[in-house]
Amino acid sequence: MTTIDHLGIAVKSLAAAKGIYEKLGLNISPEEVVEGEQVRVVMIPVGESRLELLEPTSENSVVAKFLAKRGEGLHHVCLRVPDLPAAVAKLKQDGTRLISEEIKVGAGGHRYVFVHPSSAGGVLLELVEGN
Amino acid sequence: MTTIDHLGIAVKSLAAAKGIYEKLGLNISPEEVVEGEQVRVVMIPVGESRLELLEPTSENSVVAKFLAKRGEGLHHVCLRVPDLPAAVAKLKQDGTRLISEEIKVGAGGHRYVFVHPSSAGGVLLELVEGN
Repeated sequence: MTTIDHLGIAVKSLAAAKGIYEKLGLNISPEEVVEGEQVRVVMIPVGESRLELLEPTSENSVVAKFLAKRGEGLHHVCLRVPDLPAAVAKLKQDGTRLISEEIKVGAGGHRYVFVHPSSAGGVLLELVEGN
Repeated sequence: MTTIDHLGIAVKSLAAAKGIYEKLGLNISPEEVVEGEQVRVVMIPVGESRLELLEPTSENSVVAKFLAKRGEGLHHVCLRVPDLPAAVAKLKQDGTRLISEEIKVGAGGHRYVFVHPSSAGGVLLELVEGN
């Protein structure tokens, strides 16, 4: 079954942005730096999904560029799909615009692709492999 | 337990935007017009959550104004919380900026409030009552 894995939210300050979620009684992970992406991150589990708050650690970070252009707000939506290679094959066949043509392998071995916002109603859509 | 109830995504064309979700094998509701909000809507169940695609039916629609200002993309995130009055009381006590001071009652009797993006990392955050 396809689920929402996480929502990535670009913020200027983790300390400021996580306040609302603390007040709602949600658990917030310790801050963690992801060097490759030049971001500092907290994860907030919400049911079967997570909110991922992203604060840039460098002005060269993709998230810093997003903030400069769009301001704070949702950066991407990540769906967990049962069969990623099949989903990617189907999307490519139907002319969907992907950010990269190949499935990438990230931290911990998880596999992912990004669909370009022009093919997903303005949303930067990440797909990861289920379970 | 708090969950993601739905994500509201503002689009110019439902027909164009829903394509990617059809290709991913998701079920898409019939289109429905919500007169009060001047939008045409489809709902796409994703696990315990839903994606809500919103196309304006009038240039006076809040969604039309959003599209003119920001372009297509995520409009709001809706969390389902177990006790809405308690959550709202806590947020107000802590100085969170809400769009309206009182809990509103929408279609079908569901109760909701919106948190201003300035209090939620740039995200327009809707809260609805759980279960």
